[in-house]
Amino acid sequence: MPAPRRRSEKSRRAIYGAALALVGEVGYPRTTIEGIAARAGVGKQTIYRWWSSKADVLLEAFLDLGERQAAEAAAVKAAEAGREQEAGREPEGEPASYGIPDTGDLAADLKAVLRATVDELRDPRFDTPARALAAEGVVDEELGRTFVAKLLEPSLQLYVDRLRAAQRAGDVRPEIDPRIALELFVSPLAQRWLQHTAPFSHEYTDTLVDYALYGLAPR
Amino acid sequence: MPAPRRRSEKSRRAIYGAALALVGEVGYPRTTIEGIAARAGVGKQTIYRWWSSKADVLLEAFLDLGERQAAEAAAVKAAEAGREQEAGREPEGEPASYGIPDTGDLAADLKAVLRATVDELRDPRFDTPARALAAEGVVDEELGRTFVAKLLEPSLQLYVDRLRAAQRAGDVRPEIDPRIALELFVSPLAQRWLQHTAPFSHEYTDTLVDYALYGLAPR
Repeated sequence: MPAPRRRSEKSRRAIYGAALALVGEVGYPRTTIEGIAARAGVGKQTIYRWWSSKADVLLEAFLDLGERQAAEAAAVKAAEAGREQEAGREPEGEPASYGIPDTGDLAADLKAVLRATVDELRDPRFDTPARALAAEGVVDEELGRTFVAKLLEPSLQLYVDRLRAAQRAGDVRPEIDPRIALELFVSPLAQRWLQHTAPFSHEYTDTLVDYALYGLAPR
Repeated sequence: MPAPRRRSEKSRRAIYGAALALVGEVGYPRTTIEGIAARAGVGKQTIYRWWSSKADVLLEAFLDLGERQAAEAAAVKAAEAGREQEAGREPEGEPASYGIPDTGDLAADLKAVLRATVDELRDPRFDTPARALAAEGVVDEELGRTFVAKLLEPSLQLYVDRLRAAQRAGDVRPEIDPRIALELFVSPLAQRWLQHTAPFSHEYTDTLVDYALYGLAPR
């Protein structure tokens, strides 16, 4: 990497880190481009050169964090599988969380992805800034809709794709709307996380998947 | 009602109204006892005589609002049923929303309650202050837990009771945990409302109940 590119890469990382830390500490309304610049040790013109607003900076900072978490999770998985030599390398091809696996066992695939989501929600690097942003989205509908469209909905579409594949395989009834169906296991976890309604665990998300697939009524 | 009691009842109503309006306008952190008192046209000592904190005032204001919404919904229902002469009266016994009906048809009973919840969430008297409080609960875990315990969990326990009755009637599998099961239809609605992830309607909550009871997998 040439020196100017390396320098701007370093600034970009510092800006993302500063934006996430600041929003977690002071909340969205009190986060400013000036504050992010000061904390990142860059001039505010450096930020305005690349982004048009604090919302844009935060959006990309979360996308970048998600990519790094996915790469780390893939590395941990590789290490756990005994392939320690791969653990430090960038995963080849798409990181695991960019798609939902299709092993042919729908329940197992959904459980694996939701367990990874539980781990992500528990990571304070994600939890603190994501809470601050989510709280603002509750009262600022336009901001909420923007961040949902850019950060949440793309992940939800992966569930839609996996459920459509399950419909083709005969594992989900053809008349089910996948965009509603995914909420049966995604929304309960989201509510426990966001509203502190109850603790969550891998066992909990496994249960949600079983209930959603097989229903509550006797078969 | 004797005059002093009528006066304090009037103050109590004014304080609730002021607290709900203020938190909806300026958010929880900037809502103060002084601000509520000024808006209600009472001295702040009047508030401190009855409540120890702004959280306490808001808690009771929401409980009172819920009771009034339930009484109104019962009156509307009575009017719709052609019993117009009952519409203006206080409902006899417990208002409808203090329990979930048990007609023997679990799906119909759950759909009726969730449709009423959709209507409540769309009522701006509830929506605006409840959003402000929920947003604060996302970032202030202690406040969030207090309000969930006092305002949300009692409603959720009504679903637990109804699902337990359904288990006794053989309509829900005995191994199902009712406290988790209720989240399959309650949490998706909560997430659409809180995070603006998608529109919600009576048709949507009906679908949630059907998916939750009968599952996504072929039977």
